Amino acid sequence: MKAKIAVLPGDGIGPEVTVQARRVLEMVGENFDHEFSFEEAHVGGIAIDECGDPLPEQTLNLCRESDAVLFGAIGGPKWDDPNAPVRPEQGLLRLRRGLGVFANIRPVKPHPDLIDQAPLKPELLRDVDLIVIRELTGGIYFGHKSRENDVAVDTCTYSVGEVERIVRIAASLAREREGRLTSVDKANVLETSRLWRATAERVVHDEFPDVKLEHVLVDAAAMHLLQKPDYFDVIVTENMFGDILTDEASVLAGSMGLLPSASLSDDGPGLYEPIHGSAPDIAGLGIANPYAAISSAAMLLRHSLKLDEEADAVERAVARAVHEGALTVDLVRDERKSMTTAEVGDRVCELL
Amino acid sequence: MKAKIAVLPGDGIGPEVTVQARRVLEMVGENFDHEFSFEEAHVGGIAIDECGDPLPEQTLNLCRESDAVLFGAIGGPKWDDPNAPVRPEQGLLRLRRGLGVFANIRPVKPHPDLIDQAPLKPELLRDVDLIVIRELTGGIYFGHKSRENDVAVDTCTYSVGEVERIVRIAASLAREREGRLTSVDKANVLETSRLWRATAERVVHDEFPDVKLEHVLVDAAAMHLLQKPDYFDVIVTENMFGDILTDEASVLAGSMGLLPSASLSDDGPGLYEPIHGSAPDIAGLGIANPYAAISSAAMLLRHSLKLDEEADAVERAVARAVHEGALTVDLVRDERKSMTTAEVGDRVCELL
Ligand SMILES: CC(C)[C@H](C(=O)O)[C@@H](O)C(=O)O
Ligand SMILES: CC(C)[C@H](C(=O)O)[C@@H](O)C(=O)O
Repeated sequence: MKAKIAVLPGDGIGPEVTVQARRVLEMVGENFDHEFSFEEAHVGGIAIDECGDPLPEQTLNLCRESDAVLFGAIGGPKWDDPNAPVRPEQGLLRLRRGLGVFANIRPVKPHPDLIDQAPLKPELLRDVDLIVIRELTGGIYFGHKSRENDVAVDTCTYSVGEVERIVRIAASLAREREGRLTSVDKANVLETSRLWRATAERVVHDEFPDVKLEHVLVDAAAMHLLQKPDYFDVIVTENMFGDILTDEASVLAGSMGLLPSASLSDDGPGLYEPIHGSAPDIAGLGIANPYAAISSAAMLLRHSLKLDEEADAVERAVARAVHEGALTVDLVRDERKSMTTAEVGDRVCELL
Repeated sequence: MKAKIAVLPGDGIGPEVTVQARRVLEMVGENFDHEFSFEEAHVGGIAIDECGDPLPEQTLNLCRESDAVLFGAIGGPKWDDPNAPVRPEQGLLRLRRGLGVFANIRPVKPHPDLIDQAPLKPELLRDVDLIVIRELTGGIYFGHKSRENDVAVDTCTYSVGEVERIVRIAASLAREREGRLTSVDKANVLETSRLWRATAERVVHDEFPDVKLEHVLVDAAAMHLLQKPDYFDVIVTENMFGDILTDEASVLAGSMGLLPSASLSDDGPGLYEPIHGSAPDIAGLGIANPYAAISSAAMLLRHSLKLDEEADAVERAVARAVHEGALTVDLVRDERKSMTTAEVGDRVCELL
């Protein structure tokens, strides 16, 4: 098949890890006889520096014309002032909204060889295999904001339609897995959560009678994720709760450097990004962990290009490379045994 | 001294654990020659059943006339419908607001003998000694809510004054400890967080130059709490983030059943409650863990009655009882070695 992939390396370690993910995709193209073309564009801090806009119009246009978007990371000390009128993360938020990628999918399945790296007791982690589906284009992230005199206001809004579509995605995914869906809200306090809960209840009852739905309050969910992480199958939640819970859940896998994400719309291109940030402290040193970016590329193959076999091949190569000990410095006890970003990329390509 | 203490047992295990906390306070009164008087009132589900209101006026009045309020827990399956017009947690929220207790203080310091109970690796927990200060009467909990057609809205508001006073409490506490304050926000997305961050910065800079302030985004904080829990000294954050992070942090102590909280206003009575809920599944069995309620009573002595020595005595008695193995069933491996709620209360009273 032919596919056009937009590559947005961004800031910090973004470019370093994205280049490895791109190499892996090129290798898949060769091996499986696909014609992948890549085009790069700026986003985030570097885009602010180049043209004063964290999401230049040509970047958004390129993404819209592509079959999928491979994203690195954004931000850094240079653009860190939260009161600056133009900030890197505005680029990411406008990109998510501009592409309408409302469904953020974050799988967490610790690699057996890395379970010891996590702060939790290994016996709690062995059977963890969960996916968090985070609503990504609504809620308090995108509601009306204001500042008047000494008072700041953020608004959290959800419509029935917004909840329906994300619950459908989550329930479909649950159906392909163990059929258990945990919807997380704060229905004892928030009106948006009461709408969320009632809508989730109705959609699952009417359209997914085979899926077992339960509701958990966000504070309880933050505990249960640690007390019985292997209990969960698919978790679905709103934007802000999802931001917090996915980062919390990432700890179960031992390192943020391992975890990919996919953000999907109803029909346009998907957006694929590591869940880690731009890690400015190690940028340019060639030691960043590329597995999250490479695994995001695998999700790209699966979700946007419908190339399941190819996605499986990449995931198998990643699993083998990790098992062999092809690890960057964040994942090894003895620094001398660590590999560079590029060496890890090499190894995954060889194993493909 | 003389002091009047309002007791609001509430629902579920609330009455069982509160009665033990009250006994401990009575014993302190005898031992240290204070005249504590107690008056009980309804709140939560039982208040709905009795008079259709989760916070009857006479309950609020009693609290206002008292020196401190000892609170149990609220809620249960009977009143669980999030769409019911009258719900137990409204009683708690209105009580917090009615008393103006804007500063919720939740210390987390795992007991050395119980470190193995937590899901985290013991070596990470040994030096944990942190306090979370949660803003309790503002933010999205109390902002305007609405539902029109298919759209629900919650509003999050913070004023400079609301942030100033909570930051002052947190910085004063930090000053008495290690002098390190971590302010948690989401300043890269929320306007209220930008106001929060700028205000925290100014208050600490101008009034607490000896306190070391740092800002952490809420998603990162949810990770760091697990990766380096012993790093934190005092954490201050807004209402909703505090709800999630304090429940997450409670896991570090091995059991929610151990953790107390104090909610303070500028001058009125403080509100003291275990951080656990009403646990309807074990209500009435006499097996609920009373330590969180008893430790809340210790905080009451310290913060509302300024009886430091007495508070220390209760905390020492709790520590010794735990060390001796006076534990309810949630904390023992071998059920036959567990004590009932009342037996634990007995033992703490004996040790006093
Ligand atoms: C950079 C930031 C705006 C973003 C978010 O909060 O969504 C990030 O934390 C994420 O989770 O992708
Ligand atoms: C019962 C509920 C409204 C309450 C809250 O969210 O504040 C509880 O979770 C708490 O943390 O005290």
